[in-house]
Amino acid sequence: MSTPDARVEEAPRRRLETRTTPTEDPARLDRTDPARHVAEAAEAYRNWGRWGEDDRLGTLNFIGDAERARAAGLVRRGASFSLSQPFDMNGPQQGWRRRTNPVHTMLDTGTDAAAGTQGFPHGLGGADDVIAMPLQCSTQWDGLGHIFDHGVAWNGRPAGQVVTSDGDLVTGIEHAASALVGRGVLLDVGRYLRPEASEDGPAGELPEGYAITTADLEACIAAQGATSAVGRGDLVLVRTGRYARALRDGWNGYAGGPSAGLSFTTAGWLHRTEIAAIATDTWGFEVRPNEFDDAFQPLHQVVIPNMGLTIGEMWDLEALAADCAEDGVYEFLLVAPPLPITGAVGSPVNPIALK
Amino acid sequence: MSTPDARVEEAPRRRLETRTTPTEDPARLDRTDPARHVAEAAEAYRNWGRWGEDDRLGTLNFIGDAERARAAGLVRRGASFSLSQPFDMNGPQQGWRRRTNPVHTMLDTGTDAAAGTQGFPHGLGGADDVIAMPLQCSTQWDGLGHIFDHGVAWNGRPAGQVVTSDGDLVTGIEHAASALVGRGVLLDVGRYLRPEASEDGPAGELPEGYAITTADLEACIAAQGATSAVGRGDLVLVRTGRYARALRDGWNGYAGGPSAGLSFTTAGWLHRTEIAAIATDTWGFEVRPNEFDDAFQPLHQVVIPNMGLTIGEMWDLEALAADCAEDGVYEFLLVAPPLPITGAVGSPVNPIALK
Amino acid sequence: MSTPDARVEEAPRRRLETRTTPTEDPARLDRTDPARHVAEAAEAYRNWGRWGEDDRLGTLNFIGDAERARAAGLVRRGASFSLSQPFDMNGPQQGWRRRTNPVHTMLDTGTDAAAGTQGFPHGLGGADDVIAMPLQCSTQWDGLGHIFDHGVAWNGRPAGQVVTSDGDLVTGIEHAASALVGRGVLLDVGRYLRPEASEDGPAGELPEGYAITTADLEACIAAQGATSAVGRGDLVLVRTGRYARALRDGWNGYAGGPSAGLSFTTAGWLHRTEIAAIATDTWGFEVRPNEFDDAFQPLHQVVIPNMGLTIGEMWDLEALAADCAEDGVYEFLLVAPPLPITGAVGSPVNPIALK
Amino acid sequence: MSTPDARVEEAPRRRLETRTTPTEDPARLDRTDPARHVAEAAEAYRNWGRWGEDDRLGTLNFIGDAERARAAGLVRRGASFSLSQPFDMNGPQQGWRRRTNPVHTMLDTGTDAAAGTQGFPHGLGGADDVIAMPLQCSTQWDGLGHIFDHGVAWNGRPAGQVVTSDGDLVTGIEHAASALVGRGVLLDVGRYLRPEASEDGPAGELPEGYAITTADLEACIAAQGATSAVGRGDLVLVRTGRYARALRDGWNGYAGGPSAGLSFTTAGWLHRTEIAAIATDTWGFEVRPNEFDDAFQPLHQVVIPNMGLTIGEMWDLEALAADCAEDGVYEFLLVAPPLPITGAVGSPVNPIALK
Repeated sequence: MSTPDARVEEAPRRRLETRTTPTEDPARLDRTDPARHVAEAAEAYRNWGRWGEDDRLGTLNFIGDAERARAAGLVRRGASFSLSQPFDMNGPQQGWRRRTNPVHTMLDTGTDAAAGTQGFPHGLGGADDVIAMPLQCSTQWDGLGHIFDHGVAWNGRPAGQVVTSDGDLVTGIEHAASALVGRGVLLDVGRYLRPEASEDGPAGELPEGYAITTADLEACIAAQGATSAVGRGDLVLVRTGRYARALRDGWNGYAGGPSAGLSFTTAGWLHRTEIAAIATDTWGFEVRPNEFDDAFQPLHQVVIPNMGLTIGEMWDLEALAADCAEDGVYEFLLVAPPLPITGAVGSPVNPIALK
Repeated sequence: MSTPDARVEEAPRRRLETRTTPTEDPARLDRTDPARHVAEAAEAYRNWGRWGEDDRLGTLNFIGDAERARAAGLVRRGASFSLSQPFDMNGPQQGWRRRTNPVHTMLDTGTDAAAGTQGFPHGLGGADDVIAMPLQCSTQWDGLGHIFDHGVAWNGRPAGQVVTSDGDLVTGIEHAASALVGRGVLLDVGRYLRPEASEDGPAGELPEGYAITTADLEACIAAQGATSAVGRGDLVLVRTGRYARALRDGWNGYAGGPSAGLSFTTAGWLHRTEIAAIATDTWGFEVRPNEFDDAFQPLHQVVIPNMGLTIGEMWDLEALAADCAEDGVYEFLLVAPPLPITGAVGSPVNPIALK
Repeated sequence: MSTPDARVEEAPRRRLETRTTPTEDPARLDRTDPARHVAEAAEAYRNWGRWGEDDRLGTLNFIGDAERARAAGLVRRGASFSLSQPFDMNGPQQGWRRRTNPVHTMLDTGTDAAAGTQGFPHGLGGADDVIAMPLQCSTQWDGLGHIFDHGVAWNGRPAGQVVTSDGDLVTGIEHAASALVGRGVLLDVGRYLRPEASEDGPAGELPEGYAITTADLEACIAAQGATSAVGRGDLVLVRTGRYARALRDGWNGYAGGPSAGLSFTTAGWLHRTEIAAIATDTWGFEVRPNEFDDAFQPLHQVVIPNMGLTIGEMWDLEALAADCAEDGVYEFLLVAPPLPITGAVGSPVNPIALK
Repeated sequence: MSTPDARVEEAPRRRLETRTTPTEDPARLDRTDPARHVAEAAEAYRNWGRWGEDDRLGTLNFIGDAERARAAGLVRRGASFSLSQPFDMNGPQQGWRRRTNPVHTMLDTGTDAAAGTQGFPHGLGGADDVIAMPLQCSTQWDGLGHIFDHGVAWNGRPAGQVVTSDGDLVTGIEHAASALVGRGVLLDVGRYLRPEASEDGPAGELPEGYAITTADLEACIAAQGATSAVGRGDLVLVRTGRYARALRDGWNGYAGGPSAGLSFTTAGWLHRTEIAAIATDTWGFEVRPNEFDDAFQPLHQVVIPNMGLTIGEMWDLEALAADCAEDGVYEFLLVAPPLPITGAVGSPVNPIALK
């Protein structure tokens, strides 16, 4: 990892080198041809083989012990922020793709214990519970087996041999059990681009459909200052304000509806910064509607199976963002361990930011 | 938090003051009268009201920003250890109390994507998944609503008004979303008491039914050295070797069967050390069979609803313990965030130890 | 069971005797006082003790072998009608009370079998599946433990001792496993009251909020003819047309929204006809909004815990009703066995009408 | 359907014509070559195209209105028998293939209602519940999409296009919603072959691993008398006594362990009798261990995807069998409707026999 200053200086130079294809230039995207752009970006930013044939972690390999040790060194006050939305029936899911909100039920209750129906000795009473939920229902990580590109999974493996009904046999989320720990950086693009309320909406919230470009990201980094520099092994959190809106106005299509998000053209930035993972406060990470006439999550198709990037979605960045805005420090230790569900293509997560 | 050295010196003095009741003396426990001992310990170690009437965190209140900042300072190498068992059907549960192992199923697969049946545009394919699991099925935290004492929950509230079919309305695990972060200390009692293989079993593993006493804990701390000192706000991990045995020999009653674990008589130690939480590598935290003729988890009954102590169970301490044994450092930053499932009386967790 | 003709003649006489309280007279209901009306009806129509203290079946006791044999004798053509809605994610539930639509997932698939990933010998392949669903999610029976009146369950038992977190310990639906077989009678009130399309809506559909009265039921019986006579042990199906509307226009509040349904004032008719069970094509059986200013399913409160009546909801009566309208025969053998889920307070069901 | 007498006479003649291959002769089966026998039987008994290219019902097509009307005519006493095992955690499943027993939990309880925590008006209280279960966990029908032969499903369709993660897109069990109604015939092979207790076990129970042959079936039919004649459109129930043993001695491998069951060599009989469906009181319908050295459910592979036969498993035939033994009548109306779970490859069922 280069020093923060070095990284800021390097960024423009790298940009000049690489911002030469239509795929990185929002003005030159051909809305009618997502297939071509996906193919170009996939080829340009593909990391297959970079960490060996047996790799199961993709860009999480950018985090090593040294990166984690430095990240722990960022903790000053000891403030702990949970970045998870609540897991309950009042969630964003509407049933699409059989995704429900979490159904939490009790196997035993305090009312039963009080009524004396439980049969335990010496006055013991207990409560147990159970949950049924899609792993993609709320705050989560997308694993490397979550998305395929023309039937091919991360590292070039045939999707049909990677993820069967038995789950992800190769890149299951359990392989990342100890990996999602490192330096977190918050890019509060919502606050940066919308410092004041406007006809677009309240302060701090990007309008639906706003495509965050590489220029936006870099300007936000520059504006936020040195603690926001982004480089190898970082866990980048991008705040759009979409969750703030849902908290205030109700879900209203939070899951799958229009939303600000990353432009397809940021694929190159995601690649050359060598970040380890990225997460947003939106359902889908990338801008919706997508920037092509007939498309579905094209940026996913580039970055998960080709780049090997782990993506977080539906994170609650509100309290953390308020704190960062207040003290001007946008970096922290981020510990966001997935549940090691064997063969899962994703995991609910309660990410912890420590400042 | 006092310095480690101070704590070690203080411990014997406090012990003299408090180790005066049969309830703290293994030799004086009356096996036929769990109710009396539970009542005595409950009264002696009760923390009701200590953090106000509205408290939802119990002993987790012992951790503040300062404790967390110091804990982060323990990270040296940046080594990250996941302390979670795998979440899958090859788990310990046998169906008792309707506890199954986690059932993970796919909503979409790579085989489907490869077969072209998914209907997404431009070659996109995807996999989604879902899980159904008891929150007590594998590596977990017991929340404060998990156990009641004679129909009373933590802080003296009537159990029937705290945990209904709608879940824990007061002390749901979501309130601890950012709280379970602090200094972790491993007490490897298995290795300490069984440095060599014996007729009891392999090295590092306590025999089933072995009740770990306060004397054992203090001797282990003394033997492991200064990094093992235990005090206010610590997250204490006690390794018995029971999970190592399960890994080698199969589950064989891991869930609910005989196991080493904490003696009922450690309740006083758990109280006066002012630890924030404790976790073990066993199913039930306390020794099984319990130390009374007719009893069920009596130490739970004392420490959860009366003391307000959060308990972790079924943790995988193997890799961490091997590392601690090698470098002699038994303290670390522990980040063990529960999933904030609204109203849950427990949560699966993938605890991360950072050294 | 009296003969059909006798039953038709008896009806007016019984009506004169009993239609004397405000509780049976729609014009005299006091919208502001549901508690009084519920209490009056509960007392008037209570069947507690009628079938002994240990009874688990309530009005299902009205069906005996003789009634079933006669019902089987109604089968002439051998036409079989399934009266169940589809069980899938495209169902009526919106999440209220944690009721989701059924989540059906595959444990193994044909795509996997075709891809050769299953590992079975000699070319065998297989598919398995799993479901998670509320028992009240779609076509169902409400068991006797589904509703309580002031903390009291069917037959006068304390609700807290009948239905705990372990389920219904007394009147679980498994006790009705072989009982829900008998003479079915369709009362197509929708077609009877709305023979033509009107400003209220299409032909055959009652407007939302229409309260079906005893007079409506009796007039419908008279109009449909002798095969519609209702008496002891019958399984009465009331069609409102609400499901036809949902099929055409979408769910739009089918679950819990406004709907035609039985008036609270039909409680007396439900009692004196001595029917065994009743089912409708609506979510809630009784009219919604309910006929009181502040009420929730008051007729349930009378007929389930007090009368012991089993209620079916969300049945698909469309094909059967069309057939009955065509041949003028409204009686049939009805076989509607619940799944004997131990301790369940209801069950999904695929009712079969045989004509 | 021919008359019972005629069918009995025809059987031997048909047997002579067809019992010419090793595949129908237990003495000539080559234990080392299941693949050959499966292939021979599949070809010999294949019904592809018999009911058109779009068929979704297979041999259920053998039941028409006339068959159902005649079956209804068999009801004399009106006795109703539920043939379902209980659905609860005390079930046969041990976790193989992620098959758990049904997990039934409460969304609301009577203890809550009694405690006054539910918030309904005028004294209303309620209980709701939810279930999570494999569709193959207990008494069930296997749908036509449950088994494939070399990647091919019923009627010759490619398995990968029939059953995806979205379920069975072609032959989902919902298509059989009204079809599983007809004449049931009980063949109590257990009682017939083991009229007395022996060293093999108690009376009425075949020993584990006993392969029921065509000769056994025909001899049982002959012994039971004319009401047992089997012919086109019948729903045949074969009792082995395996469930009686489980009821008495515990599950002990009921799911997947050794059991009596149909011999692979009965495939021809299953085909030429033109039965509509068959069910047994065992986990796996066919004898286990299977009659080949290395095999898994080879008879399934022949009869489901090739013959189009619907199979029921884990039925409780005890009460019905006792009744049949008493009155000597082995035929009845059988109404066994699956839950119409869209796309399911099987369904739990509570079959009702009416005598």
